[in-house]
Amino acid sequence: MVESVTTFDGWYTLHDFRTINWEKWQRATESERNEALIEFHNLMSEWQIVEDNHEGSHALYSIVGQKADLMFIVLRPTMKDLNKLESQFNKTALAHYTLPVYSYVSIIEKSSYTKRETDPYKDPAMLAKLYPTIPKTQYICFYPMSKLRGEINNWFTLPKEERGRMMFEHIATSKPYTEDIKRIITGSIGFDDYEWGVSLFCDDPLKFKKLIYDTRFDEVSAKYAIFGTFYIGNYIPKEEVNTYFEI
Amino acid sequence: MVESVTTFDGWYTLHDFRTINWEKWQRATESERNEALIEFHNLMSEWQIVEDNHEGSHALYSIVGQKADLMFIVLRPTMKDLNKLESQFNKTALAHYTLPVYSYVSIIEKSSYTKRETDPYKDPAMLAKLYPTIPKTQYICFYPMSKLRGEINNWFTLPKEERGRMMFEHIATSKPYTEDIKRIITGSIGFDDYEWGVSLFCDDPLKFKKLIYDTRFDEVSAKYAIFGTFYIGNYIPKEEVNTYFEI
Amino acid sequence: MVESVTTFDGWYTLHDFRTINWEKWQRATESERNEALIEFHNLMSEWQIVEDNHEGSHALYSIVGQKADLMFIVLRPTMKDLNKLESQFNKTALAHYTLPVYSYVSIIEKSSYTKRETDPYKDPAMLAKLYPTIPKTQYICFYPMSKLRGEINNWFTLPKEERGRMMFEHIATSKPYTEDIKRIITGSIGFDDYEWGVSLFCDDPLKFKKLIYDTRFDEVSAKYAIFGTFYIGNYIPKEEVNTYFEI
Amino acid sequence: MVESVTTFDGWYTLHDFRTINWEKWQRATESERNEALIEFHNLMSEWQIVEDNHEGSHALYSIVGQKADLMFIVLRPTMKDLNKLESQFNKTALAHYTLPVYSYVSIIEKSSYTKRETDPYKDPAMLAKLYPTIPKTQYICFYPMSKLRGEINNWFTLPKEERGRMMFEHIATSKPYTEDIKRIITGSIGFDDYEWGVSLFCDDPLKFKKLIYDTRFDEVSAKYAIFGTFYIGNYIPKEEVNTYFEI
Amino acid sequence: MVESVTTFDGWYTLHDFRTINWEKWQRATESERNEALIEFHNLMSEWQIVEDNHEGSHALYSIVGQKADLMFIVLRPTMKDLNKLESQFNKTALAHYTLPVYSYVSIIEKSSYTKRETDPYKDPAMLAKLYPTIPKTQYICFYPMSKLRGEINNWFTLPKEERGRMMFEHIATSKPYTEDIKRIITGSIGFDDYEWGVSLFCDDPLKFKKLIYDTRFDEVSAKYAIFGTFYIGNYIPKEEVNTYFEI
Repeated sequence: MVESVTTFDGWYTLHDFRTINWEKWQRATESERNEALIEFHNLMSEWQIVEDNHEGSHALYSIVGQKADLMFIVLRPTMKDLNKLESQFNKTALAHYTLPVYSYVSIIEKSSYTKRETDPYKDPAMLAKLYPTIPKTQYICFYPMSKLRGEINNWFTLPKEERGRMMFEHIATSKPYTEDIKRIITGSIGFDDYEWGVSLFCDDPLKFKKLIYDTRFDEVSAKYAIFGTFYIGNYIPKEEVNTYFEI
Repeated sequence: MVESVTTFDGWYTLHDFRTINWEKWQRATESERNEALIEFHNLMSEWQIVEDNHEGSHALYSIVGQKADLMFIVLRPTMKDLNKLESQFNKTALAHYTLPVYSYVSIIEKSSYTKRETDPYKDPAMLAKLYPTIPKTQYICFYPMSKLRGEINNWFTLPKEERGRMMFEHIATSKPYTEDIKRIITGSIGFDDYEWGVSLFCDDPLKFKKLIYDTRFDEVSAKYAIFGTFYIGNYIPKEEVNTYFEI
Repeated sequence: MVESVTTFDGWYTLHDFRTINWEKWQRATESERNEALIEFHNLMSEWQIVEDNHEGSHALYSIVGQKADLMFIVLRPTMKDLNKLESQFNKTALAHYTLPVYSYVSIIEKSSYTKRETDPYKDPAMLAKLYPTIPKTQYICFYPMSKLRGEINNWFTLPKEERGRMMFEHIATSKPYTEDIKRIITGSIGFDDYEWGVSLFCDDPLKFKKLIYDTRFDEVSAKYAIFGTFYIGNYIPKEEVNTYFEI
Repeated sequence: MVESVTTFDGWYTLHDFRTINWEKWQRATESERNEALIEFHNLMSEWQIVEDNHEGSHALYSIVGQKADLMFIVLRPTMKDLNKLESQFNKTALAHYTLPVYSYVSIIEKSSYTKRETDPYKDPAMLAKLYPTIPKTQYICFYPMSKLRGEINNWFTLPKEERGRMMFEHIATSKPYTEDIKRIITGSIGFDDYEWGVSLFCDDPLKFKKLIYDTRFDEVSAKYAIFGTFYIGNYIPKEEVNTYFEI
Repeated sequence: MVESVTTFDGWYTLHDFRTINWEKWQRATESERNEALIEFHNLMSEWQIVEDNHEGSHALYSIVGQKADLMFIVLRPTMKDLNKLESQFNKTALAHYTLPVYSYVSIIEKSSYTKRETDPYKDPAMLAKLYPTIPKTQYICFYPMSKLRGEINNWFTLPKEERGRMMFEHIATSKPYTEDIKRIITGSIGFDDYEWGVSLFCDDPLKFKKLIYDTRFDEVSAKYAIFGTFYIGNYIPKEEVNTYFEI
């Protein structure tokens, strides 16, 4: 067995994508629509209390293109919390105007290729990464990914040092984007169909493209990355939810 | 022909995944919902008698994310039993508020790379593995898998000793998790589209990720494992079924 | 061009898989259900006359798991016969409570790697294989398959002797199962998306798994087999059709 | 750049596959059904005039198995003609009893590996191939295909002579079938998802299988062919359309 | 890290594909249809003002075959503009007679393998390419594509000079088509599932086929191109929209 890598894990994460049945929504009566929005705002207010108490975080996005209309990200301390939250939303009236189209279940993860001297769970910088508040930038880019286990190129049979070297090269390429693009990396082995989820946050969507393009030439991406579907979305602050649903 | 491996087989197994049409459920009358739940509880009571008599076992889970809402696992002595049970459920009123989304048909299987001196079907430890009661832990992780028959790396053309060596390495990596994670391995060659089904049971879902991540670096997983979809679920004891379906 | 193999062809074959809309069926009136079943029994009686006259054969199965509920196999002398039969069934009332989910079009095929001295179409043993009555065992296992045309391992560029040698090894591995498991091999090149269909018939479904597992280590399977979806079903004799559809 | 091949192009071609909603059709009133059929016959009469004027051709088939119920092939001088024809059919009453399931857009194509002395567009034999009337044989076999661009075997990096040699071998294998099986080869690069469409016409469907099986051992097929879905259909002459739709 | 390539980016681009529910459209009342078309024309007039002000561009196409009925392309300065425009269309009455089937999100992109002396964003030729008006030719051909990251052939690990050399060969092959076929290349890394989108514009669809066929033999296409689905469409000028929707 090749040596694996130490990971530190934070909040459980759900990415939940929905399409909206606009015709059904427009055919509902005004009071049906109002009640559905009020119920949804109440739910989001409960979520906001959780976020204000630093016991989780959430954000809502409008996805560009037909892959989905809406996407929620929700961070919570337990898998059961995620499941309850899904169930809560599924039972709202607003949910009945939406159709589930994709979801991703994972957990915030920091990997470490180097030995740490101190307890990471007492390191405030680490804690901020494991239990973050979702950056409320204007755009999000989400994609799941795995590492290749090909017949010639196999990430998981490489020595740890080799993998570490490639990861550091990768980080170096990303350097120029660090300030502008915030990222939340989540691990999903055992939880979902790819190995990791990548959520990038920025006010300028072109920077997502530039970052991912530049890093595609890194050995780790070029030879070992398997990319799932890419989703790009605009942040919807709660004040704009009603405008979004205006008919 | 390369020498195959001896397998011992126990109960037939069905994993049955469903989504719920919440809107339809919420629009049903209270008495329709009550009758559907009573009928379902009666069905589960019949299943419980079977389990109490050690003639099978079953459990119900709430799946996290949109892949499914509910998942049943049912163990039974014959394939016909599974088929009857499906048919019984399909004819309940509750079934009409659900949509089938995935299923997996297999049989509990223990493989042996070493020669056994005694009759395994008289060995109580083996019998407990072949005819188990499903561990009622808080979480389940299920995924089907096959072994690679690639043009370079081909599990099925390897000598038996080589396969045995890799399996023992794999078991060694899993060792630290043995106490916390219970597992039911099922064989599905000829029954379903992957070669095996893996059902893991634990009270802490993070341990699933850690186990599967650590073992991914084992030669057998890194080079030869083909993984299907991963499902993660919360156990629903029968006392919580009505809460789950509360509108 | 590498030398191909002589094949002898018998009856055209349709495997037709359907799911049942149980809710619609249960909501139908009793007389609607009765009429649908009577019409279906009449259709099956016509098919029975064909089978009794040795002009074809058919059987009905209940599929385990969610891939389908029902599966028909029908053998007929011409492709047009299959098409007419489909059309006949599609126009029954019962068909309107089902949804097509998969089908497979092929023709019974015997390949010969060795030179035959006598006319196979006058050989009673061969005729019985080409124009069989479907064995009415309790279980069926069906899967389509192709042979690999990989960049390294390519079945179709191997010399005929090499292919013959592997097929004989394969037959040897199957030997211990010959008595218990009956098989109908159908060819589907030009008719459907895999190259062959395999239909296995046995009273004990575990034997399907053991046979297919053992043969998976044969060079021909390990290196060259591409397997489609596996379907496992319970035979429904006509006397049990009404029980199957009981609400 | 490797030298490509000269192609001569004829009529644009649409293969259009539909399933029929038999329940909806049977529930329509007799006059609704009659009107739908009359409108459809009128449309086919217009198409017949085009065919009689040698300005195109068309044929209707009943597909065997569940991939589709009906298939049209239509040949026309321009892409716009195909588009108009689709639109015309979509607006008929009969179309509302069908569901589109697959289509293929291509153009009749003759490739030439050898230098031609004369203008092919003045050669009557060539013109007959580029602007054909669809052979009204009892059966059709249609499949799209591409040539492999693998990491080891790549059709498009082979020298032209090498490709020519393999194509001639392929034609030699097909020789014994030339009289019985008519073919229309269409090119679809830039128009649809495979590179070519193959439409074979014969009165005996078994010959399709024998031809495609024999040629599968040709180097060009064995090493370089990627096959899409295979469709097999029975020709429906216009006199039998009403019988086909009889309830 | 291998050196990447400089890209210049222009307008954000949405390709939006829809099928039409013709039955629903034909069953609507004449006044419902009229109102829906008037509302749609008003929307297109707003888009036309944007195009007239050189602040974006758009075009509408009728897709040939069943992949879609309609396709919009829209170019806009920001991702948010695309999202708003989608939302606007989704809320029209006409949208309720359509079903989304595919979309592609990208941004107009010019890559440069050579060093530029001057600021490309001040070069009028470059600006015309980055902020174009969609050529109103009779036909469009659209397909997304990626470059192979295979285990043997990997575009992203090649030296920049090698990639440049192949791109120049590719451009040379396209030369004879430059005048007839206009192209808009868009980049979609981080935005959608392929790396680029190719939109070709021409009055003669056969030229699309000839161009793509010729270039398929270029090393860059033969060895490194992964092609998505090909869509071919006829331009619908706004004067022909009502004819298109005529029942």
